[in-house]
Amino acid sequence: MHNSFGNILRLTSFGESHGKAIGGVLDGVPSGIFLDLEMIQNELNRRKPGQSHLTTQRKEPDQVQFLSGIFEGKTTGTPISFIIENTNERSKDYEHIKDAYRPSHADFTYDKKYGIRDYRGGGRASARTTASIVVAGAIARHIVPDIKITAYVSAVGDIELNQPYRELNLNQIEQTPVRCPDLETAQLMINKIEQVKKQGDTVGGQVSCVIQNVPIGLGEPLFDKLQARLAYAMLNIPAVKGFEYGSGFAGSRMQGSQHNDIFNTDGSTKTNFSGGIQGGISNGMDIYFKVAFKPVATLMQTQESIDNQGNKIVLEGKGRHDPCVVPRAVPIVEAFATLVLADFYLLQKMR
Amino acid sequence: MHNSFGNILRLTSFGESHGKAIGGVLDGVPSGIFLDLEMIQNELNRRKPGQSHLTTQRKEPDQVQFLSGIFEGKTTGTPISFIIENTNERSKDYEHIKDAYRPSHADFTYDKKYGIRDYRGGGRASARTTASIVVAGAIARHIVPDIKITAYVSAVGDIELNQPYRELNLNQIEQTPVRCPDLETAQLMINKIEQVKKQGDTVGGQVSCVIQNVPIGLGEPLFDKLQARLAYAMLNIPAVKGFEYGSGFAGSRMQGSQHNDIFNTDGSTKTNFSGGIQGGISNGMDIYFKVAFKPVATLMQTQESIDNQGNKIVLEGKGRHDPCVVPRAVPIVEAFATLVLADFYLLQKMR
Amino acid sequence: MHNSFGNILRLTSFGESHGKAIGGVLDGVPSGIFLDLEMIQNELNRRKPGQSHLTTQRKEPDQVQFLSGIFEGKTTGTPISFIIENTNERSKDYEHIKDAYRPSHADFTYDKKYGIRDYRGGGRASARTTASIVVAGAIARHIVPDIKITAYVSAVGDIELNQPYRELNLNQIEQTPVRCPDLETAQLMINKIEQVKKQGDTVGGQVSCVIQNVPIGLGEPLFDKLQARLAYAMLNIPAVKGFEYGSGFAGSRMQGSQHNDIFNTDGSTKTNFSGGIQGGISNGMDIYFKVAFKPVATLMQTQESIDNQGNKIVLEGKGRHDPCVVPRAVPIVEAFATLVLADFYLLQKMR
Amino acid sequence: MHNSFGNILRLTSFGESHGKAIGGVLDGVPSGIFLDLEMIQNELNRRKPGQSHLTTQRKEPDQVQFLSGIFEGKTTGTPISFIIENTNERSKDYEHIKDAYRPSHADFTYDKKYGIRDYRGGGRASARTTASIVVAGAIARHIVPDIKITAYVSAVGDIELNQPYRELNLNQIEQTPVRCPDLETAQLMINKIEQVKKQGDTVGGQVSCVIQNVPIGLGEPLFDKLQARLAYAMLNIPAVKGFEYGSGFAGSRMQGSQHNDIFNTDGSTKTNFSGGIQGGISNGMDIYFKVAFKPVATLMQTQESIDNQGNKIVLEGKGRHDPCVVPRAVPIVEAFATLVLADFYLLQKMR
Repeated sequence: MHNSFGNILRLTSFGESHGKAIGGVLDGVPSGIFLDLEMIQNELNRRKPGQSHLTTQRKEPDQVQFLSGIFEGKTTGTPISFIIENTNERSKDYEHIKDAYRPSHADFTYDKKYGIRDYRGGGRASARTTASIVVAGAIARHIVPDIKITAYVSAVGDIELNQPYRELNLNQIEQTPVRCPDLETAQLMINKIEQVKKQGDTVGGQVSCVIQNVPIGLGEPLFDKLQARLAYAMLNIPAVKGFEYGSGFAGSRMQGSQHNDIFNTDGSTKTNFSGGIQGGISNGMDIYFKVAFKPVATLMQTQESIDNQGNKIVLEGKGRHDPCVVPRAVPIVEAFATLVLADFYLLQKMR
Repeated sequence: MHNSFGNILRLTSFGESHGKAIGGVLDGVPSGIFLDLEMIQNELNRRKPGQSHLTTQRKEPDQVQFLSGIFEGKTTGTPISFIIENTNERSKDYEHIKDAYRPSHADFTYDKKYGIRDYRGGGRASARTTASIVVAGAIARHIVPDIKITAYVSAVGDIELNQPYRELNLNQIEQTPVRCPDLETAQLMINKIEQVKKQGDTVGGQVSCVIQNVPIGLGEPLFDKLQARLAYAMLNIPAVKGFEYGSGFAGSRMQGSQHNDIFNTDGSTKTNFSGGIQGGISNGMDIYFKVAFKPVATLMQTQESIDNQGNKIVLEGKGRHDPCVVPRAVPIVEAFATLVLADFYLLQKMR
Repeated sequence: MHNSFGNILRLTSFGESHGKAIGGVLDGVPSGIFLDLEMIQNELNRRKPGQSHLTTQRKEPDQVQFLSGIFEGKTTGTPISFIIENTNERSKDYEHIKDAYRPSHADFTYDKKYGIRDYRGGGRASARTTASIVVAGAIARHIVPDIKITAYVSAVGDIELNQPYRELNLNQIEQTPVRCPDLETAQLMINKIEQVKKQGDTVGGQVSCVIQNVPIGLGEPLFDKLQARLAYAMLNIPAVKGFEYGSGFAGSRMQGSQHNDIFNTDGSTKTNFSGGIQGGISNGMDIYFKVAFKPVATLMQTQESIDNQGNKIVLEGKGRHDPCVVPRAVPIVEAFATLVLADFYLLQKMR
Repeated sequence: MHNSFGNILRLTSFGESHGKAIGGVLDGVPSGIFLDLEMIQNELNRRKPGQSHLTTQRKEPDQVQFLSGIFEGKTTGTPISFIIENTNERSKDYEHIKDAYRPSHADFTYDKKYGIRDYRGGGRASARTTASIVVAGAIARHIVPDIKITAYVSAVGDIELNQPYRELNLNQIEQTPVRCPDLETAQLMINKIEQVKKQGDTVGGQVSCVIQNVPIGLGEPLFDKLQARLAYAMLNIPAVKGFEYGSGFAGSRMQGSQHNDIFNTDGSTKTNFSGGIQGGISNGMDIYFKVAFKPVATLMQTQESIDNQGNKIVLEGKGRHDPCVVPRAVPIVEAFATLVLADFYLLQKMR
């Protein structure tokens, strides 16, 4: 519980934004797997700050170091632990919020829950902790190399990409810094972010994810349905406000005669409103889902707020922050989804 | 895992739709609590079939029997086990689907995963298993009597209730069989269900839930955020396709300057786009969320499908089924939410 | 936790001695296994009271009823739940201990921990709860049919069977009610129990267990070593005071040059002081261990004690109790060991 | 599971003997506790090699570094992670065992289980991994400062300390390198170890532990009995072959009339054969237990063995090893016991 995620394949995460290091311990990885360390670092690079003018200018090398569980390049079946040092700790940027509660941040709730708070850079509540998830997810890809997990930005504010994923060229995702596979829409999204950034404001967005080539039979009824684990994973990402899979919220407006996925004789289905999952178990069709992110709470604008004594204060916009979180959220969504799939894959091997 | 839900307060569920009984074991309930058995049975009655013409006409008494954990009316701190006998098992209604895979049901995936399937009434995949959740949730209410958890139907198909919960009279929820607190909209929903039923069709819908009087500090970063546990619970309910809390998907279209919840000096906030949770921890404001349900897959219409040999078959509409699941889902949503809140409440007592 | 045992294969236990029923839910059993229900009932019969003049005369039919998880004789992969009704509840026998704390019972600690206690027949602290373990263990035998798990009585008081298990005829275990495979020693043990019973006294004893034909590789370092799980299981049996495996306590007196198990070229070892486990992982040699049981605390003698107000009281010897627990403990030790082995066996399938 | 220990207070351990570092993540520590870092390092020093001529001459500084979970000297409620770098990695000492299976080591079983093995210094199977337990236990002492946990050496080979702990001066434990509180027996033990060392041999031993000032009510029936958790912890220590608490194996030879602990009117008992636990729950009396350790398997003698191809080989005695493990095991036993007690202490706060 608390800081561990997964059943058989379990990530235990640790670290604060401005402590010595963040990191994780990934337990349950089968032995004898060659790890592609460069690929893992590349995944981490996709998440790191300072990639483009659309993201925070905070530059951290975000270099992962492995401490255990690997011998002569291969996994040994023992826990794989890793750290990412916090090298660019401009803690002074945060002195001004030491006693302040920033609106829509976790300052107030951490203080009330724990009675103490590492205020520097958001401490444990910082989205920086998602770097450990990206590393763990990249390791997990080695367990399920045949499953293809692809996320992309499908909305920035009200700029939405409305085509279904089948009509998109998913190879174009990395062609723009905004990670939207439709290049025209991508440009509109970039414009939107630039405009918002100029205002010192931020904007929300959505990330879509499609999981292809999934073996039939993953997921555990009653209380570890595949969609429930995916929702759980996604709602643990900071700033996420919603999750839908398959037909999603739109499906609630449909009638059964439209929504039912009629079988082909090979067990595949003509439509896929089910989103690749029936009764909590994968049916071999593509799994697809969408995740909603709220706008980043840190603004480059002056805001009213209170301090920890209940006094009114004025917060100046300072520090380096993302105007829109979704481009950097893409590898996080993929990583979390991979952890879920690999966990169920291992579990299914017992049957 | 698998068939257990919760950390400290843990429900282990068992049973198939047409076996001897379904039931559960609720472990972790503190000792010395007087249980209101009548209230528990009443909650179960809110879920049971045959309540009105809007739901399936299958009539089951759904009488809960407690086997352990209660002594002289009070909890003893030992596991509370209970069963609900399956008395109205018209298994013959299901002979025709013995070898059939019904569209958008779990027949296919259970068969592929387990190689065997209790086909009668959907077996373990039946929504009947949610009765155990309702019982457990009703017990859990005794642990957090001050927290008020209220769900209601906010959409049936395209008939949507768009007012925020604060503008609704939640005392009117039980006044109509559709459990929508706005009586005019309720009537439209009833009309919709009646019309769909006449067609032998089904329709989806949405359930909204509001949780009031929540203590500050519930929820566990990093991987047991309060919203993540709620999403996990809801996506484990059969037919659920989506979850959003606070500003939800609409929040992803907003800018930070609109979305940020500015503090009052007492720590409450002027707006509540955050939905009562910040950094995964309750902040004392109301928690509210919405759940999307797909239309029921069993139709009273003829459908094409396949059998377990891949042969094309034609399914006749038979049996007794709900044209719309959301009215009966209301107590399930409440029960699951209560289990989540009570679990975190107990956990927080350790701090 | 609390009332659940096992990782992948998990028993959740419930019930009090004089409630409606005791029972369990066994989750994680693979699907498609034909269950030999007669064998399961037979195992339960080996544990039940009233088997011979050496055990309590309380007669309970102890008939197991399965509620779920089995379809047409086979496991379905869903939770197998079962109950054993409490039919012979002479609760009045316990009225006199309602407010009393019996020496070396759990009355005092339950009262202090929970503030309430089902005093009838020991409530949840009754050894009757081990019946659920026996049922679960008998189911688990179906998962690991090739592993042979055999327990027997190796001591009653100071009557000890000192030969190693290899020199014993384990087929003779069930030939006497005391379940000692050496028939001469068995007779001495029977005499001892009869003598103690005549005194209204009780006596402790030891149970040995040998596990043969174990696959290499079961057990999980660091914190789920095979021996640690076995010790954990055994120390959860009421009245157990000690556990040793392989060379055990005697091994602590040896030198490494004597104790080291030298390999044969096939990987087996010439000696087996290690007890079939090295580094927490089975090595394919026989696993053997010994469990110490204290004498039953309920005497047919007058004893001084206190009530729940701290007043001195005198307890009369009443009710029906075992003068020596070890003969009936044999199937419990086997069942718990089987649960441990089957759990690790399933886990190992993931590698 | 696997590499995590504890429920509410959970240690996740990682690292191999000759990797970059070993370490752990301790989750569940309440916030706001000042950590005495010097005391923690001192506990680690009690375990480290090279303390005296009785232990291995391998010198490692064993300096613990904390990476997270502490802010301005206090715990924050977030996971406390720590590493201990492996600085004295004379890996070449192990080249000769690369393909060899040493008798009574984990070489064979790790190879068979995982198909790969970090052979350097025993890899993950090295007792070096217990350093993480010592650190975690020292942190856990801060959670239960009033509980006094004291271990000492009670046997080295056949040199046994037979007095009960009440008759010993436990303040003398650290006066000799062998950590036996009776100074005469200590000298005999030292002589024994020196003699065995001269032979290039090793010898087993026993560690006793007493836990004083325990709150009433710790421990969780049915399957997390306090004694079961302690046994589980102890049997997870490398080289442990047995565990007994209270009257232990000797208790199995007693009669109930002798063994029953008669109450005083204050709820304490006149004797304490129960060892401070009844029905799996602490009763406030001292908890005491004994742990048996086999002799270290690495000898400074020539031994016959096999390699991983099944060829006969001869192993020379090389490297630096302990002739007797029990003096260094004392802080490990204490640390593991502390983790168990602190975990149950936190759990009990929920009631």
